Amino acid sequence: MFDSLYQDFTETADPTRGAPRLKQMRGKLRAEKLDGFLVPRADAHQNEYVAPCEERLAWLTGFTGSAGFAIVLRDKAALFVDGRYTIQAREQVDSQAFAVVPLDQTPPADWLAQNARKKGRIGYDPWLHTPAQVARYEAAARRAGAELVAVEANPIDALWRDRPAPPCGPVALHSLKNAGEKADKKLARLREGLADAFLVSDPHDLAWLFNLRGADLGHTPVALGFALVFRAEKPKLFLAADKLSARVGAALGALADLADPQDLPAVLAELGRKKRRILFDSATAAAALTQIASAAGAEVELAQSPIALMKAQKNARELDGARAAHLRDGVALTKFLCWFDAQAPKGKLAEISAALALENFRRDTGALKDLSFPTISAFGAHAALPHYRVTEASDAKIGKGVYLVDSGAQYLDGTTDVTRTVTVGPPSKAFVDAYTRVLKGHIAIARALFPRGTVGAQLDALARLSLWRAGLDFDHGVGHGVGSYLSVHEGPARISKMGMVALESGMILSNEPGYYREGAFGIRIENLVAVEPRNIAGAERDMLGFETLTLAPIDTRPVDAKMLDADEKAWLNAFHARVRKILSPLLSPKERAWLKRATASV
Amino acid sequence: MFDSLYQDFTETADPTRGAPRLKQMRGKLRAEKLDGFLVPRADAHQNEYVAPCEERLAWLTGFTGSAGFAIVLRDKAALFVDGRYTIQAREQVDSQAFAVVPLDQTPPADWLAQNARKKGRIGYDPWLHTPAQVARYEAAARRAGAELVAVEANPIDALWRDRPAPPCGPVALHSLKNAGEKADKKLARLREGLADAFLVSDPHDLAWLFNLRGADLGHTPVALGFALVFRAEKPKLFLAADKLSARVGAALGALADLADPQDLPAVLAELGRKKRRILFDSATAAAALTQIASAAGAEVELAQSPIALMKAQKNARELDGARAAHLRDGVALTKFLCWFDAQAPKGKLAEISAALALENFRRDTGALKDLSFPTISAFGAHAALPHYRVTEASDAKIGKGVYLVDSGAQYLDGTTDVTRTVTVGPPSKAFVDAYTRVLKGHIAIARALFPRGTVGAQLDALARLSLWRAGLDFDHGVGHGVGSYLSVHEGPARISKMGMVALESGMILSNEPGYYREGAFGIRIENLVAVEPRNIAGAERDMLGFETLTLAPIDTRPVDAKMLDADEKAWLNAFHARVRKILSPLLSPKERAWLKRATASV
Repeated sequence: MFDSLYQDFTETADPTRGAPRLKQMRGKLRAEKLDGFLVPRADAHQNEYVAPCEERLAWLTGFTGSAGFAIVLRDKAALFVDGRYTIQAREQVDSQAFAVVPLDQTPPADWLAQNARKKGRIGYDPWLHTPAQVARYEAAARRAGAELVAVEANPIDALWRDRPAPPCGPVALHSLKNAGEKADKKLARLREGLADAFLVSDPHDLAWLFNLRGADLGHTPVALGFALVFRAEKPKLFLAADKLSARVGAALGALADLADPQDLPAVLAELGRKKRRILFDSATAAAALTQIASAAGAEVELAQSPIALMKAQKNARELDGARAAHLRDGVALTKFLCWFDAQAPKGKLAEISAALALENFRRDTGALKDLSFPTISAFGAHAALPHYRVTEASDAKIGKGVYLVDSGAQYLDGTTDVTRTVTVGPPSKAFVDAYTRVLKGHIAIARALFPRGTVGAQLDALARLSLWRAGLDFDHGVGHGVGSYLSVHEGPARISKMGMVALESGMILSNEPGYYREGAFGIRIENLVAVEPRNIAGAERDMLGFETLTLAPIDTRPVDAKMLDADEKAWLNAFHARVRKILSPLLSPKERAWLKRATASV
Repeated sequence: MFDSLYQDFTETADPTRGAPRLKQMRGKLRAEKLDGFLVPRADAHQNEYVAPCEERLAWLTGFTGSAGFAIVLRDKAALFVDGRYTIQAREQVDSQAFAVVPLDQTPPADWLAQNARKKGRIGYDPWLHTPAQVARYEAAARRAGAELVAVEANPIDALWRDRPAPPCGPVALHSLKNAGEKADKKLARLREGLADAFLVSDPHDLAWLFNLRGADLGHTPVALGFALVFRAEKPKLFLAADKLSARVGAALGALADLADPQDLPAVLAELGRKKRRILFDSATAAAALTQIASAAGAEVELAQSPIALMKAQKNARELDGARAAHLRDGVALTKFLCWFDAQAPKGKLAEISAALALENFRRDTGALKDLSFPTISAFGAHAALPHYRVTEASDAKIGKGVYLVDSGAQYLDGTTDVTRTVTVGPPSKAFVDAYTRVLKGHIAIARALFPRGTVGAQLDALARLSLWRAGLDFDHGVGHGVGSYLSVHEGPARISKMGMVALESGMILSNEPGYYREGAFGIRIENLVAVEPRNIAGAERDMLGFETLTLAPIDTRPVDAKMLDADEKAWLNAFHARVRKILSPLLSPKERAWLKRATASV
């Protein structure tokens, strides 16, 4: 019925390859006089999505989840995954070859400390770990009386015959209309108060700083590369020349001296010889780079990238772009929800066909560049897995019950991320109670009013209080930052118990409380919000609140209106009135009628 | 009318001494070939209250506040204080000699980086700084091209003629009845999973671990000393022999080998020569100690003291003790509030006389060991200063208006800390609004229900939401941990935006939202609470809540009952019913009648 441009539902796991590859790997380690090796799922920029050539963990173990870590020793090997991936890992991996270890029970560093042999040499690829990660494994190895050794070349690359080439997506300029600030202005702001030099190692920072976008990775329009920004000199931008058209190369060449990423180590070594002080981004800079700089004599400083906070605070143009993107995206999602409401009761839909339909409604906008992440299309018990990803093998038929769809899009003017939970047929009493509690949490965040300086951790509980009263909770954060035609997961601010960054005007965050009943159903209600200043009569502080950006109806059929107070009802009805007013002119008569019913006051 | 055993209201500031002492100091530095020196207000344990012999900052600058830092250079000197002390510092210090710099505008490390001269040698006393502090000032010195140099002896000690001797308070054993767990059991628990050795450098940890209490400092019954706890060998306890009676020495000698604190450096050096791994408490261990261990070859590990979390989770005996202490303390405070209500309208009271009266009501219990901190007795605009400390010079007469009293006591069975804000005469509309909002915040914490794993930062906003709705806020945390006949400020848990530690059953914390209108009034309503497990029907998580320990009426005259919802009224009325029921039998008929009125339902 629908085709897909941006989604892949095939299952690539093949547990039979693990054992022979592990054997090859151990042979290679012996040849290199190593007793073990660390295999993270990482690239040289600590990206969330990595290029196919970086999928060394999947090549070795068969495990294709988005987060994992393996340690290979002479006599044992372990794959470490978090709670959401333990089942998947056990299916994808040969457990004779790799012990599947839950990360939260035994962190890999502890496992290494317990299992490395005395005087053992444990290798690691310094391009795939940050200095802090290296320090952690060095300490663990030391506890075992072993030693951590950086290798020149990753041993897996020599074994992996059909390893794909590194990505070489074309670089595009991000228009001033969408960026809202010229790159030279951003560079000037960044230079204020900068050390001698700052190495930009996060491709999202690179994209924001130079107003460029790339096509090296799925879901996130970044170009893999680096930049060195100096306090006084012209910046150096390290991007493979193959990615640059003449026009793009000329534009970027006006801002920075262009160089190949291969040249970066030599440039860092040269700065080191001049005893320069270089700031590295502690979250993304590879240990290889800090080691090269340090060894050559540089003063290495590790801290949060100063770009992170600049990028997170969207300017007026970016906020306008976000509003336009959310309007477009809201039309597509609303059309989908109307379509789903008509189709689902017929019993012909399944998780994949629903996800494809939603992609097609988004493609119909004519502006879709990519999905911002693989759609979570989950029916029934699958919805109870917060990170469920449908495959051809798991594809459940949609019948009576609960359907959760968490999806987002990349448009030139903005990135979206939205979750709706809808019921097919009459909902159960337990579902209505939990759904209304989740909605109360969502509304508490949407209505929050707080002074400047408030950090995300302080707001986190607002989304949980109604669940806590019933002894319920959910195990993920309430909100993450979202980029502007960049990553759907953007730092540094977040609404979670770990959110230590103050929320500032212009930040875009998700508001996504949930609840998951194992084996039964899952609930998540997610809108994106932008932090905005608020005028309060008599206020003594600069006050902030949230503007809700997402425009699509929230299913009110499972709402127990008696559980909502007057303020909560007022928010829900006002939100729906706004959705109806803004979206109606852009819908067909049938969809318009559906939306009117869907947004009726509670 | 009343005398004082535990309070001192004299003002010791003398700005005229600053200039000559600074001159002496600079002469001494020249003789030692130093270009500058760091002068913290600190002892070798990073104690909040320090012994008189450690008041080097006050000796040098005249500043007597509880937090401050000076840097002396050849041509300039600066005193750094936080917001609560800028006015006091300007009054106490010769501003020709010392620039008074607000900490939050220019941290001392930044000032050093800007003002140290190239190749300058900046001295510091490694006993008075933690390794992390040293690292910060080393980096700052390096930025200026200068060098940080540890000195063998503090130059101030050579200049300070009448410097008091170190304290030598007798050590007492803390009875099992109050401690609830034998010291050998505590030692066994601590040893599980310990590195080779752990240096106990926090005297509060030392007191808890060995079930001892001391008399070296005001307000906190600790003995200054150290311990080395080994995984396998008998611990070493470093306490001056003069502090130990034969009985106490014998009891402690059964648990640990006793030694003099002077011997600690040699013992650490010996462990270093054996290449042992030693854990130091990053919050309190002096850099002198880690430097000695490191230089001798030890593997130095810095982390939060493992005792901090053990000590914070009070056992059943300690909780029973806390309840008994709060009952006793509640009787004293209630008698005071009744007395104050009768006396204040006569216009004869002042801040000091009120504070003395309260101390005397506590002494009448026959069980008072000390006040747990200097009483904050503040009328009118003074109450707007959250850390106000009355002196003979500032002592305000109490008339019509707002009186805030924040006080606490040390009893053998527990430590208390309580704040009440009471009005003399009819309150203003603005006060009633703000007071009711603060009370709503207090009740929100008291009523909180949350799952295990919740950190203090998540609860912080509950105490602020009602203020935030009006654009108001307060600039301190909502709650700090409290010890068991130990420090009134105890880590690691707290309810504040920096509270990253999960709240666990048995922790005692304060619940103290406030509001401060500069020049007009201040409000704070503080009870202590204990974290307790809660059974909720249908709960899927282990749920926790707070048991309110403090027993004394909260002034309801300024409460706008229309601003309270049904749940809030129910909490307030139930709290007051409990206070009335428990305290009434322990009061005089007149006091009982007063309490009945004071605790009437709203």
